[in-house]
Amino acid sequence: MVTIQNVRVTPLAVPDLPLLNCKGVHQPVFLRSLIELETDAGLVGLGETYGAQRTLDGLRKSADALIGLDPFYLNDLRRRVSAALPGGGGVNAPTAVADHRLVDVVAGAYEVACMDLQGKLLDRPVCDLLGGPVRDRVPFSAYLFFKFDRPAGQPGTDLWGEVMTPDAMVEEARRFVADHGFKSLKLKGGVLEPDLEIETMIKLREAFPDHPLRIDPNGGWTVETAIKIGKALDGVLEYLEDPVLGMDGMAAVAREVPMPLATNMAVIEFDHFPESVQKDAVQVVLSDHHYWGGLQASKHLAQICQTFGLGLSMHSNSHLGISLAAMTHLAATTPNLTYACDTHYPWVDIDITTGARPSFTDGTLGIPRGPGLGIELDPARVAELADLYKASNVTDRDDTAEMLKYVPDYERKVPRW
Amino acid sequence: MVTIQNVRVTPLAVPDLPLLNCKGVHQPVFLRSLIELETDAGLVGLGETYGAQRTLDGLRKSADALIGLDPFYLNDLRRRVSAALPGGGGVNAPTAVADHRLVDVVAGAYEVACMDLQGKLLDRPVCDLLGGPVRDRVPFSAYLFFKFDRPAGQPGTDLWGEVMTPDAMVEEARRFVADHGFKSLKLKGGVLEPDLEIETMIKLREAFPDHPLRIDPNGGWTVETAIKIGKALDGVLEYLEDPVLGMDGMAAVAREVPMPLATNMAVIEFDHFPESVQKDAVQVVLSDHHYWGGLQASKHLAQICQTFGLGLSMHSNSHLGISLAAMTHLAATTPNLTYACDTHYPWVDIDITTGARPSFTDGTLGIPRGPGLGIELDPARVAELADLYKASNVTDRDDTAEMLKYVPDYERKVPRW
Repeated sequence: MVTIQNVRVTPLAVPDLPLLNCKGVHQPVFLRSLIELETDAGLVGLGETYGAQRTLDGLRKSADALIGLDPFYLNDLRRRVSAALPGGGGVNAPTAVADHRLVDVVAGAYEVACMDLQGKLLDRPVCDLLGGPVRDRVPFSAYLFFKFDRPAGQPGTDLWGEVMTPDAMVEEARRFVADHGFKSLKLKGGVLEPDLEIETMIKLREAFPDHPLRIDPNGGWTVETAIKIGKALDGVLEYLEDPVLGMDGMAAVAREVPMPLATNMAVIEFDHFPESVQKDAVQVVLSDHHYWGGLQASKHLAQICQTFGLGLSMHSNSHLGISLAAMTHLAATTPNLTYACDTHYPWVDIDITTGARPSFTDGTLGIPRGPGLGIELDPARVAELADLYKASNVTDRDDTAEMLKYVPDYERKVPRW
Repeated sequence: MVTIQNVRVTPLAVPDLPLLNCKGVHQPVFLRSLIELETDAGLVGLGETYGAQRTLDGLRKSADALIGLDPFYLNDLRRRVSAALPGGGGVNAPTAVADHRLVDVVAGAYEVACMDLQGKLLDRPVCDLLGGPVRDRVPFSAYLFFKFDRPAGQPGTDLWGEVMTPDAMVEEARRFVADHGFKSLKLKGGVLEPDLEIETMIKLREAFPDHPLRIDPNGGWTVETAIKIGKALDGVLEYLEDPVLGMDGMAAVAREVPMPLATNMAVIEFDHFPESVQKDAVQVVLSDHHYWGGLQASKHLAQICQTFGLGLSMHSNSHLGISLAAMTHLAATTPNLTYACDTHYPWVDIDITTGARPSFTDGTLGIPRGPGLGIELDPARVAELADLYKASNVTDRDDTAEMLKYVPDYERKVPRW
């Protein structure tokens, strides 16, 4: 029998760029937690998840409960984490417009590391433990952001400069497509006034007539605005993601616009399905093993979407290569994941893994060969980002506070438009 | 890489007793298919499923498609079986009141054998590949049948004699409980007239005041009868299984009776959930890896039940030890499978496995230790039941035709009462 004997949780800060959304702008760094589960035989399983304070506390509070766990015992993992986090709670600040259950996030993060261990124990890639691949390469979409120019003194590099107009966004998209070959484009919206975002999407359509397009304002629009935009973008969007907040708002928009609504804000845990199905509030659910509870839970999610005639896509937060590998294994083994997956990865120019950086060909990634996730850590890079975490003094994500540095009279408003 | 190089499908006939249901009586034998998947290295994975003609044909027609399959590639297994069975169809005769998709049955049967191979390759029990056990022992319920005495000349033995009255049924239950320690009792109903079945359940309640009780007439009642019986058995039943046929009928009964309705006839594939949820037609779904599409699909089913607030129990057809082992591994790893599982196993006094026959303690079974399912075949017993298949001339189940041998003017009627 194999058991986990050592749990290491390391918060990392990763240089980021001033990417905009409806609540503000990305801070100079984004935070991730690196998870290492070490067995009695010294084998190490890797995981990666959010690095903000509540997640970090939850990971640390439940770490001891994992000692002695067999990495195949995923039910027991869930039980141990639940017991270690009485009261549960969420991972986001109480002001957040959407939250994820701490138990789902923590158990899911540890589950990925257990799956990595399982694969290493069997000398098989994680995808083989998820039913085997249904596709050799996983399509990702370009994730387009309006952005400010990077202020002097911020860590990292910014090869992009300011992108704050429809025409500049088309240029950003051209570079993404030229560099990575993406065949789908997603715009983070809710930033410019609605007419400018409509114009942006139409210009993207003109520049990329064959690319499926999406826009995601993170609930930044009123129902009225969302319906207006949805109608204006008839024939332009493959789906409209979280135009408004709340199940009733989504249902109201869904009834009026011609395209499916996607979500990573209205339906973000299994308990949300009964209401969503009853109200036909969303038509595409975004998978994300980081908050749905891990890779196995994400497979259940896929079956629920299949069963209820819902589309399935994949959500991304800013992340490093461990998460990217897990996302790729999952997507490769999920038959009804038919939309290109979101990823922030091209925005990040540093990673903690050894070997060549994963590179997109025609917008797709091959499946890491394993064993496990197929990832090896570069200790020097881990140390560098762990040092940056300590130096950065950032322990939570706050895009609104960051925005005030650029726009002193900025006011947080969801919906904004 | 491991691949399957040889697929053997062996139809078996197993001596059975004249157990009654609303459509007739069990034939002298029940049929099963034994599946053996052999790898290039000579390792053999075992599976067991229905043995009637359509299933047997489907298994044989898709056998060649499995050559070269990696037993971890369960998605590919499903794809290959689907491609080998164009047109799909069901496993039951067109007159059946409920049917199962041939692709689900065939892919599910082969999936279990692949999981057995996986476990053997890893030297781990199948339960470890399903997330690990959440309970050390799996509770089963006594499966009580009204029955005729065994006619002279039928194979096998009958230690029970005729059981055709409420009092005789209480005696049958006493023996089941004395012999196996069952803590839950299920009656196959729809056989005697409704007042006698009500009397039977009330007498069982008096004899076993602490045992959860169920009755399952296989859709043999009208909505009116079902509501009358449901009301009469208020406080007596933990659930009422398939009192009537059809989603609307179940919904009509569910609105009027005080106990939850369970089903293995109204909701028997994933596509049935949207209508069932919308109509609140059933409150407990019966799992059965033989028709839900295998062990992994049954885990998805569990999550769907959890998500939509539905109870989860487990269905049984007449079966041998391979199916029993698979059922036990699955139940042991399914947190929300909180009802005792059905099994016909105590009615069967022969098996094809070596070693001691699984024995119930306090109505529960321990988890087979593996590797894989933890089953080894006894070739002499396999040959014996394969010979009986050839000698029996039974290739399909037909309880109504069998009933005519006992009751020449018997008429098939569903609903009967």
